[in-house]
Amino acid sequence: MNMRSPKLPFVLAKQTNSPMSVSISPEQPEKIYLPRSSESKELQKIRHTASHVMAMAVQKLFPQAQVTIGPWIENGFYYDFDNPEPFTEKDLKAIQKEMVKIINRKLPVIREEINREEATNRIKEINEPYKLEILEGITEPITIYHLGQEWWDLCAGPHLENTSDLNPKAIELESVAGAYWRGDETKAQLQRIYATAWETPEQLAEYKRRKEEALRRDHRKLGKELGLFIFSDEVGPGLPLWTPKGTVLRSTLENFLQQEQVKGGYLPVVTPHIGRVELFKISGHWQKYKEDLFPMMGETEDEGFVLKAMNCPFHVQIYKSELRSYRELPMRLAEFGTVYRYEQSGELGGLTRVRGFTQDDAHLFVTPEQLDSEFLKVVDLIFSVIKRLKLDNNFKARLSFRDQTSDKYIGSDEAWEKAQGAIRRAVEKLGMAHFEGIGEAAFYGPKLDFIVRDALDREWQLGTVQVDYNLPERFDLEYVADDGTRKRPVMIHRAPFGSLERLIGILIEEYAGDFPLWLAPVQVRLLPVGDAQRDFTVEVASIMRSHGIRVEADNSNERLGKLIRNAEKDKIPVMAVVGAKEVEANSLSIRTRASGELGSIPITEVIEKLIDAIANYGNF
Amino acid sequence: MNMRSPKLPFVLAKQTNSPMSVSISPEQPEKIYLPRSSESKELQKIRHTASHVMAMAVQKLFPQAQVTIGPWIENGFYYDFDNPEPFTEKDLKAIQKEMVKIINRKLPVIREEINREEATNRIKEINEPYKLEILEGITEPITIYHLGQEWWDLCAGPHLENTSDLNPKAIELESVAGAYWRGDETKAQLQRIYATAWETPEQLAEYKRRKEEALRRDHRKLGKELGLFIFSDEVGPGLPLWTPKGTVLRSTLENFLQQEQVKGGYLPVVTPHIGRVELFKISGHWQKYKEDLFPMMGETEDEGFVLKAMNCPFHVQIYKSELRSYRELPMRLAEFGTVYRYEQSGELGGLTRVRGFTQDDAHLFVTPEQLDSEFLKVVDLIFSVIKRLKLDNNFKARLSFRDQTSDKYIGSDEAWEKAQGAIRRAVEKLGMAHFEGIGEAAFYGPKLDFIVRDALDREWQLGTVQVDYNLPERFDLEYVADDGTRKRPVMIHRAPFGSLERLIGILIEEYAGDFPLWLAPVQVRLLPVGDAQRDFTVEVASIMRSHGIRVEADNSNERLGKLIRNAEKDKIPVMAVVGAKEVEANSLSIRTRASGELGSIPITEVIEKLIDAIANYGNF
Repeated sequence: MNMRSPKLPFVLAKQTNSPMSVSISPEQPEKIYLPRSSESKELQKIRHTASHVMAMAVQKLFPQAQVTIGPWIENGFYYDFDNPEPFTEKDLKAIQKEMVKIINRKLPVIREEINREEATNRIKEINEPYKLEILEGITEPITIYHLGQEWWDLCAGPHLENTSDLNPKAIELESVAGAYWRGDETKAQLQRIYATAWETPEQLAEYKRRKEEALRRDHRKLGKELGLFIFSDEVGPGLPLWTPKGTVLRSTLENFLQQEQVKGGYLPVVTPHIGRVELFKISGHWQKYKEDLFPMMGETEDEGFVLKAMNCPFHVQIYKSELRSYRELPMRLAEFGTVYRYEQSGELGGLTRVRGFTQDDAHLFVTPEQLDSEFLKVVDLIFSVIKRLKLDNNFKARLSFRDQTSDKYIGSDEAWEKAQGAIRRAVEKLGMAHFEGIGEAAFYGPKLDFIVRDALDREWQLGTVQVDYNLPERFDLEYVADDGTRKRPVMIHRAPFGSLERLIGILIEEYAGDFPLWLAPVQVRLLPVGDAQRDFTVEVASIMRSHGIRVEADNSNERLGKLIRNAEKDKIPVMAVVGAKEVEANSLSIRTRASGELGSIPITEVIEKLIDAIANYGNF
Repeated sequence: MNMRSPKLPFVLAKQTNSPMSVSISPEQPEKIYLPRSSESKELQKIRHTASHVMAMAVQKLFPQAQVTIGPWIENGFYYDFDNPEPFTEKDLKAIQKEMVKIINRKLPVIREEINREEATNRIKEINEPYKLEILEGITEPITIYHLGQEWWDLCAGPHLENTSDLNPKAIELESVAGAYWRGDETKAQLQRIYATAWETPEQLAEYKRRKEEALRRDHRKLGKELGLFIFSDEVGPGLPLWTPKGTVLRSTLENFLQQEQVKGGYLPVVTPHIGRVELFKISGHWQKYKEDLFPMMGETEDEGFVLKAMNCPFHVQIYKSELRSYRELPMRLAEFGTVYRYEQSGELGGLTRVRGFTQDDAHLFVTPEQLDSEFLKVVDLIFSVIKRLKLDNNFKARLSFRDQTSDKYIGSDEAWEKAQGAIRRAVEKLGMAHFEGIGEAAFYGPKLDFIVRDALDREWQLGTVQVDYNLPERFDLEYVADDGTRKRPVMIHRAPFGSLERLIGILIEEYAGDFPLWLAPVQVRLLPVGDAQRDFTVEVASIMRSHGIRVEADNSNERLGKLIRNAEKDKIPVMAVVGAKEVEANSLSIRTRASGELGSIPITEVIEKLIDAIANYGNF
């Protein structure tokens, strides 16, 4: 078994679109990787050994099967087999049974170090050509692991000492999928068996609960069920189209962020989605990120246009369009700017990795003296928004600082000390959970990255705040200081969430589709008990609507039980049943997702309570 | 003089981006052309004759000058000369003087018809090679016009009978510009003299007043002075960037339109700015409009993406994403969708012809039975918006119907009658000024085009409403009718203004930069008389801001006179002067653009009045 390149399947969820969004950082988008219990040394051993046991069981039951690679992964392991027939559900059960037998035979797991020639000979003996290819890629020392006397595989280990150290009740084969040898579709098609393995049956149960929960909360599934967004083959992969309900969600979030930003003195701007190649050459994005951009429009670079993958060069143009005075600084230009990145289509999944997304972007042009206080204000605003969205429970900030021993950074020591100090003071003053990442800074300045762990224990990088001494140089930005001289401003890039799309993906999963009242696409649904109440509900809906409440009157003509079930399925926060009694009393019988049955309440009181709850981000 | 291809310089202002926006109409964007006094037969004669007089004068003063072409244009005429030296301002004065002499000599204008050989001989006699080339392009009969015995040119006429029929006080030479022979930059560079010519000095004065007014109102000039938008060479021509102030204007208009639309049951959606070529092949735009699209991104059409030039195919995808029931119709999907069109860069001017613009777009999917009432509602909404923006004074709707004698139209006679009837009934019911344009329909359905004449007597096509039986076919759209069968919906495309950019361009000129209070980027500016009042103004600004009023406290430290002049220059609707007396009395000394000095008013009253005026689209 070749363990030299373990792959983390959740890496996708942990990748991020944002760093490029706000910088010309030379690094690729980062994979956030914090160690966790599921990847402990002990679990690695369990999964290595279980994968060998599975391969042995397969070859016992299917003597024609050839083994290839079988790494451990986040929640278990997989193994790829070359077998004439695809494995069935029934085969999996038989294999699992056979594994229990092998475990119960208490076979010792024995490590043996051999030279290349010996390895070649032994492989030829058992006639397994894939192993030969694997051998070619392994550097010395070459080790094989034996299960008793009967089965062995190339493997770097580590392993348990005996198959009986595995708990058969903590292992489960999960699924089969096709996979190409070496991931190359011109090569042999293999059968990949996925399995999960843990120390105890309790751990397995917890994993299965989480998996089910993940499925229940999956934003792709919920997004479809709740009718929030769609994808279209004709439009293209990774390009979500927002339905009316999803658009309410988007614009409510946008308005909320916008409002907070306007309070903070940000100035909204609007810039085009394309620019001449020349613009991105000056900014340096063309040279550094060309392959992440959509292909150029036009024949030559001189005449060519590209879709923007970031907003900064555009905001710089607005800054530069007039000679600025120190009196105008800090100038905080903000835009919900839709940007496009040419992600590999295989990497696209739901809203968390897309080709087109809207950044909650802003660029602050500040004097060096303003850096400290502006940075604090930026982080304060972001933190308050994160709290408002209830994402602060498992929230951490990474202070991405320079490595002082490296010479890849531009700018003076003094400027770095100042900028890093500003970041440190900001997070400390705000009491924000944080850790330092030395060497994680961009070459042009330090940054602050926001990382949340979601309800499913998965980590996501949201956005960043970055200090930038580079773009002001590249675009030769200036301001007239109070002494009349021309000075260079510093830029702060900030995109708290990096992308509205990702934020919505995270929120759907965090809330499991149960949006708080102020965010819910439909806040209230009126349910008439019968035909006689239909006109009344339409009238009440129209009154509520005039108060800015997002309300629907159900006109589907179904019985009440079904109306309620539908409203529950659609996760409508407030249901208002209208029967003869309610019409008589000018009241509504209220039932909420958050608090259940609340009984009959006068309409005016319902409206007052709704308005109050929405304005205060609370429940009814 | 070659009169076969007169060019209208204002054609640019009259072209429109919208028809393509909302249809796959095979026609190119339309040139609106309504006959007007400035193009009367008499004026044509005056301008023809004056241009000959000018050419004769030029050749008298500059014997080396060769004449080429000299058509009449909207407000006068021009003539292109090949002359060794560019003409100067002083030259123009001398030429004008010479023209007066020629006019006063009362030379008869004599028409002569000659054959091609004779024409060739006569041209060779005077050695004017350009005339030979012109002659090649002329079909029989060939006519020349003589001024007395001394001067002649090839010309189709018509002309006045005598140079003395010209009023020398109604003619003025205006400017000189370079122009290439035949508009081809590889050919000789010529000197073009522009002149204006009228029947009376009063007409000339009126023209000059309009020209000055146009200059004063020019949205490019005002846009720059008021700091509303910029263009950037690096971003590219025709791609405006909206500054903070311009963005306020944009979003106030957007919010206003959105609000009206939401009241009308429209559902906002958000769709990507790019789509696969495939999408536009299905819609037919790829085949019909390829050259108007930005170049494809990617190597092959299969993998290629294009920037969207219209939103309809995207909205169709949302409609198609679920099986729709008749209960869901009419479904009105609306988007402020930014689209991109690859206009020739030479054609770009300010906001009225751009390469990227935001459509106030919507697509209504309706049952055939709903067409009539929905069309009426659409037009009603648009008309009320036009009235609110005070663009209704010189407003006309063109009913673009099919030509019954042509067979280029798809769809049944019955459907056409129904759709045209719906349009006619709508405009009649609303008392909208209108006229019929037979043969102006798209091949797939009739449309209603909105045309306004602005403060400068120029005509603009705004947007259109179109009935479309074609896209529902191409995308195979369906709904489940109340009898359970599948039926085909009809689409209504509507973009009342066609483009937010153009709308803003028109409004800037219409209002001459004096935006009504509700639209003004800055509604109030507080002007402190001295240092002592500075804190007070900041406090008042903050109170006003909390009421949603867009307010600035001037902190420029200038004397009051200068503060007021600056506020006037910036066209701030309400100025509030704060002196010691005002602080004492908790009042503001108000001065408005609309009503002048209003004296001292208590702050609470000012705020109430402002809120009321803004909410009701009125003045303070």
